[in-house]
Amino acid sequence: MAIRGAMGLPVVGMVGGGQLSRMTHQASISLGLSLKVLADATHDSAALVANGVTVGDHTSLDDLRAFAQGCEVVTFDHEHVPGGLLEAMEAEGLAIAPGSAALRHAQDKIVMRERLAAMGVPVPPFCPVATVRDVEGFAQHVGWPLVLKSATGGYDGKGVWVVRDATEAAEVVGFGVRLVAEQLVSLRRELAAVVARSPYGQGAAWPVVETVQSDGICVEVVAPAPGLSEELALEAQELALRLADELGVVGVLAVELFEVVSPEGVPGLLVNELAMRPHNSAHWTIEGARTSQFEQHLRAVLDWPMGETAMTAPVVVMANLLGRDDDGDLDRRLHMLFGRDPGLKVHLYGKTVRPGRKIGHVTALGDDLEVVRRRARTGADYLRDGLWPEDRRG
Amino acid sequence: MAIRGAMGLPVVGMVGGGQLSRMTHQASISLGLSLKVLADATHDSAALVANGVTVGDHTSLDDLRAFAQGCEVVTFDHEHVPGGLLEAMEAEGLAIAPGSAALRHAQDKIVMRERLAAMGVPVPPFCPVATVRDVEGFAQHVGWPLVLKSATGGYDGKGVWVVRDATEAAEVVGFGVRLVAEQLVSLRRELAAVVARSPYGQGAAWPVVETVQSDGICVEVVAPAPGLSEELALEAQELALRLADELGVVGVLAVELFEVVSPEGVPGLLVNELAMRPHNSAHWTIEGARTSQFEQHLRAVLDWPMGETAMTAPVVVMANLLGRDDDGDLDRRLHMLFGRDPGLKVHLYGKTVRPGRKIGHVTALGDDLEVVRRRARTGADYLRDGLWPEDRRG
Repeated sequence: MAIRGAMGLPVVGMVGGGQLSRMTHQASISLGLSLKVLADATHDSAALVANGVTVGDHTSLDDLRAFAQGCEVVTFDHEHVPGGLLEAMEAEGLAIAPGSAALRHAQDKIVMRERLAAMGVPVPPFCPVATVRDVEGFAQHVGWPLVLKSATGGYDGKGVWVVRDATEAAEVVGFGVRLVAEQLVSLRRELAAVVARSPYGQGAAWPVVETVQSDGICVEVVAPAPGLSEELALEAQELALRLADELGVVGVLAVELFEVVSPEGVPGLLVNELAMRPHNSAHWTIEGARTSQFEQHLRAVLDWPMGETAMTAPVVVMANLLGRDDDGDLDRRLHMLFGRDPGLKVHLYGKTVRPGRKIGHVTALGDDLEVVRRRARTGADYLRDGLWPEDRRG
Repeated sequence: MAIRGAMGLPVVGMVGGGQLSRMTHQASISLGLSLKVLADATHDSAALVANGVTVGDHTSLDDLRAFAQGCEVVTFDHEHVPGGLLEAMEAEGLAIAPGSAALRHAQDKIVMRERLAAMGVPVPPFCPVATVRDVEGFAQHVGWPLVLKSATGGYDGKGVWVVRDATEAAEVVGFGVRLVAEQLVSLRRELAAVVARSPYGQGAAWPVVETVQSDGICVEVVAPAPGLSEELALEAQELALRLADELGVVGVLAVELFEVVSPEGVPGLLVNELAMRPHNSAHWTIEGARTSQFEQHLRAVLDWPMGETAMTAPVVVMANLLGRDDDGDLDRRLHMLFGRDPGLKVHLYGKTVRPGRKIGHVTALGDDLEVVRRRARTGADYLRDGLWPEDRRG
């Protein structure tokens, strides 16, 4: 359906008003578009900055339908639209990208694990479990502790539990959610391979990055992943492009990976999670790559050719800004930080500051890994609590 | 006055809803802000993409006052707010940046020329004129043809006339606008030195660029200006920083320059025009510099420290996209262009396409001047008329 806006260009809608939608709107402005947003509330991150905001419920078919009817194509800022509603939209001829058949692999970890295993893609040993007895049975193969994950709805470490024994497992089983058990893999570090794919079938990959987690939340992304062999980097990119292709992804696909080492000392990769939308592990591309993941996502869902993914500096590090208590001092701290590091790029999401909440990120670019990393870390830490490295006690 | 928005950050307003406001809004999103815009109409370029849009009249003190009362500081996308209203706003304690005392040098060419001459800044020989006799008198010193300029309100070649004799001069005098006459300077090329200055007094300069004009409209900007001696580049930057300082500019100051050559063959500079807002000659900074002019303008008006101005590539060329007849084919052409040049960055302003109107720009980055220049030119030309260089005759 040709729904056109200014300059005769297509109207793109995004379900969800979080920071991904906010930054996609920001990218859409260059392309002559203005992202339409279906937000939960007028104070949502994207709703604060976009012109075409509809407040509605992403679990209501009526709301989704009404929103989609004003768009040439609808895409997503999160995975929380129920699969049945996505299928209903498609049945009505409403264009969504990625489609429901692809998206279910990002919505349901059991579906994803089983599909990837069937494709021969390396994943951690896993088993869907419904009872403590199921967990105990799986533990006989992989040992304790092991990981239990909610099949749906988890993010930022939520919905993931490391359990040491049957008693702890029983508690998680008691939550009453669909679960998958996984081996607690011994890993060297986490990586992410982020790509985009258009309906035409064109794929484009950014350099593979290292992602540093703390309490299940990504705190830092280093591009390119330091010391990663060219061989393993290529393997990760090819794997992500293959997944995008075989699952029929349209838009950005982020493949979260474990870098593991075999008993023989040979490094290898396991797929941890998939996300089919712009992803935290590629926020660095805003300044760090010729085409950002947000522009690329728009180009992909519009079936426009992909943009160049080359880096704009040898090293780019992004550090997430996590909220602490809101002391109302952000303006002053921003001022001080800009004075100390004029090259640092700051992104704030307009969100209410709450402890542990991702409220922004900072990006540093340069030549020297340690320097760039320290600058990004210093920026995020200072914005959080107003302390410079030299003011922190050992 | 502390008017705060999301995250306790200041609210910035911009008078005018054109593309400068659109791109300033885009930059404001990263900083956690959301630009408030006083637009003429809801279909204005910035009004299409920003959330906080007020439709109002920038020549009405009531409208300006009501708008400014919701902002910590108000800045401008154009020079068309009458000076008396700016002074009235200041008298009421409303914060505007730049202030009226600085802004009048960008609003009135006679004021500007006289002030610069008094400062000893090199400008073309000029003379305010009211009658044909005045023009004839000035012509006795500088010869025909000479240039007549409307003291106020001109842009993109409008309000500038080259007259060959008294008869032609009489026609321009007959328009009944305040005029300044200038020598038709024999120039090598046009340059621009763009800087920003904060109230604190910090200044930051981007590399000096060459601007290429056609029919009085800027069609291309090359950064850095090819073959410009380091000495002259430094002189231009120092001149722009000095002007910003002495005129008390807050925000971006663009100094349009003529590069001239003395009879002895010594190159020199003359100041042509001043603009105190983001300027076409620095659109290349969006991707081409670590801090764009739009982010820098916001930092300056908020009295935050200036960002790094280093280039992100050795050569950056921006080509303006000028409208032709609107054939509704832009979407297809964008598609084809992205397929041909995945590294080209396109900026579209959401404006109705009209012949000769600036409706967007394209930016190319790279190492080789001729290649980068050809890419930018090819992109802008193809988006305009759908012809590749190889399809053009002779």
